[in-house]
Amino acid sequence: MTDLVDRARGALLAQPFSVLLGTELMHAGTNELALCLPVREELKQQHGFVHGGVISYLADNALTFAGALVLGPRVVTGEYKINYLRPVLSGTLVARANVIHAGRQQATCQCSVYVMEGGDEWLVALAQGTVVRMSDLDEQRSAAPRAG
Amino acid sequence: MTDLVDRARGALLAQPFSVLLGTELMHAGTNELALCLPVREELKQQHGFVHGGVISYLADNALTFAGALVLGPRVVTGEYKINYLRPVLSGTLVARANVIHAGRQQATCQCSVYVMEGGDEWLVALAQGTVVRMSDLDEQRSAAPRAG
Amino acid sequence: MTDLVDRARGALLAQPFSVLLGTELMHAGTNELALCLPVREELKQQHGFVHGGVISYLADNALTFAGALVLGPRVVTGEYKINYLRPVLSGTLVARANVIHAGRQQATCQCSVYVMEGGDEWLVALAQGTVVRMSDLDEQRSAAPRAG
Amino acid sequence: MTDLVDRARGALLAQPFSVLLGTELMHAGTNELALCLPVREELKQQHGFVHGGVISYLADNALTFAGALVLGPRVVTGEYKINYLRPVLSGTLVARANVIHAGRQQATCQCSVYVMEGGDEWLVALAQGTVVRMSDLDEQRSAAPRAG
Repeated sequence: MTDLVDRARGALLAQPFSVLLGTELMHAGTNELALCLPVREELKQQHGFVHGGVISYLADNALTFAGALVLGPRVVTGEYKINYLRPVLSGTLVARANVIHAGRQQATCQCSVYVMEGGDEWLVALAQGTVVRMSDLDEQRSAAPRAG
Repeated sequence: MTDLVDRARGALLAQPFSVLLGTELMHAGTNELALCLPVREELKQQHGFVHGGVISYLADNALTFAGALVLGPRVVTGEYKINYLRPVLSGTLVARANVIHAGRQQATCQCSVYVMEGGDEWLVALAQGTVVRMSDLDEQRSAAPRAG
Repeated sequence: MTDLVDRARGALLAQPFSVLLGTELMHAGTNELALCLPVREELKQQHGFVHGGVISYLADNALTFAGALVLGPRVVTGEYKINYLRPVLSGTLVARANVIHAGRQQATCQCSVYVMEGGDEWLVALAQGTVVRMSDLDEQRSAAPRAG
Repeated sequence: MTDLVDRARGALLAQPFSVLLGTELMHAGTNELALCLPVREELKQQHGFVHGGVISYLADNALTFAGALVLGPRVVTGEYKINYLRPVLSGTLVARANVIHAGRQQATCQCSVYVMEGGDEWLVALAQGTVVRMSDLDEQRSAAPRAG
C-alpha cells in the first residue's frame, strides 16, 4: 500500500498544474483514492466562491488517479459529468473517487467532492466519468486532424 | 456590444483563478462568447499534456459567461459534462460557448474547446451544461447542511 | 411508508409508457427507491441486447421517482448522464436511485441499474442527474418558442 | 447514399424496441442522421407529457446510428448526457445526431431532439455522448463479473 501511495504522490508532484494549485494526496487504496486542496483567494471567482473550475479539476484528477489504480499509470479521463451542489467559501476541498467498473481499456469512476472545515464536512459536488488508457487517446490524436 | 464586452472582461478580471491561469476574453455577442488561454508548462500534467482540469475550467467558465449573456451577471454553472477529444501540447486554448435554450432561471449552453496554433485550429473538447441564477444556488446552500 | 409505496405505485401505473414496458415498483424509502423491469424480446436492439434506451428510461424514471420523495410528486428529470457498463441479455433490470442533495426546487440524484438473474446481480449502468419541480419546466416551456 | 439509408433502415427494423415504439429513419448522410417518432398516448408519463425515457431512447439511438456511420454497424452507445429543454405533448419527435470527432474505436456525437407539429419545430432536448465499437464492450462484459 505504501508503494501505491508513493506512486500516486509521485504522479501528483509530476503534474505542474497540481503543484500550482497545491493539491495533495490524502489516501490511496486498491480502488479508491482521495485528493485534497486547501482553499485560498487565488482559487476563487468574482462572487467570492471557489471557482467551479477548481472543483472540476480536483474531481477530474481524482477520477484519473482512481482509474490508474486499476488500469496502470498511463491513463487520462476521457469524459465526465459534474453537478455542483453548494458554493465553497473556505476550508479544504477533498475529492474522494472510486472505481465502479473496470475493463481492460477503461474504467468508470465516481467522485464526491467535500469541503472540510473545523471538523465538519459538506458534500459540494458529485462527478461520474470514464478513465481510459492513453493508447486510446493517442489513437484519437492521430485520427481526423481537423474534425472540428 | 462594447458594453457587453466590457462587462464580460470586467467579470473575468474579477476572478482571481482566471487571472492566475491567464484567461482572456476573445469575443462576446448576444448569445455566444469566446475565452482564450495560452498554454504554458504550469498548466500541464505528468504526460506533458495540458491538464484536463484546465480545459474543464475553461469550458465551465465559458458556459457560465454565455449563460450570463441571457440571465445577467449573478449566475453560476450548475452542472456540465465534457468529452475530451485530443490531448493538447502547445498553442492557445479557445473555448466558444453559446446559449442553446434559456428560461428565466436557467440556460442550457454548449461549449467547444479548440486549440489554435500557427493558423490551424483543432477541436479538443466538447461540453454541455446548465447555467443557473445564483438565487437557486443560495437556496441550495441554506438547505440540508449535511446532505453528504 | 405504506403510503409512500402506494403513492409511488400509483404514479407508476399512471404512466402509460411504464405500463407499456412493464415497470414495477420494488421499494420506496424516505430518500431511495427501486424500480424493476423484466427483460423480454420486445425491449431489445439488433444485437440481442436490451436496448440502451430501455436502461436509460428505467434510470431516468428511478431518478424522477427518487426526487419526488423529497420534492413532492410534481417533478421531472431536468438532465442526467448515464454510463453503460455491460450489455444485458436476460433477467430483470433493477434501478436503485437515491437522493444525494436536495434544495427546495431541485434534487441531485444517483442511480445504479443492475440485472438480476438466478440469484446473481450485476451492475449494468450508472446514472447521475437533476430532478426539478415542474414549475421550473413550465417556466421554460413558455420562454423562447424557437430556441432551436 | 441509398445504400447508407437502406442499411440504417434495416438496422432500425432489426431493433424490436424501435419497432415497438414506432421509430422511423428520416435521413442518413455521411456523418449525420435523423430518426423520427410520432407521439402517442402510450409514450407518455403521468402529467400528460411524453416520457423523458422516450426522448432519451430516441437520442441514444440517434447517437448510436450516427456513430455507426463512421465506425461501422457493430457499435453501441457507451455513455451520454441529456438535458431536457421543454415538455412535449403532441407532434412528432425528430432526433438529429452528428459525429463531432471519431477515432478508430469510438466517436463523440451530439444530438438535438425536436418536436415537429403543424410546420413548426421546437428544440426539446440536447444530448452528447460516446459511441464505441462492440469489441470494447465485449471486453467489458467478460471482466469483473461482480463489479457492482
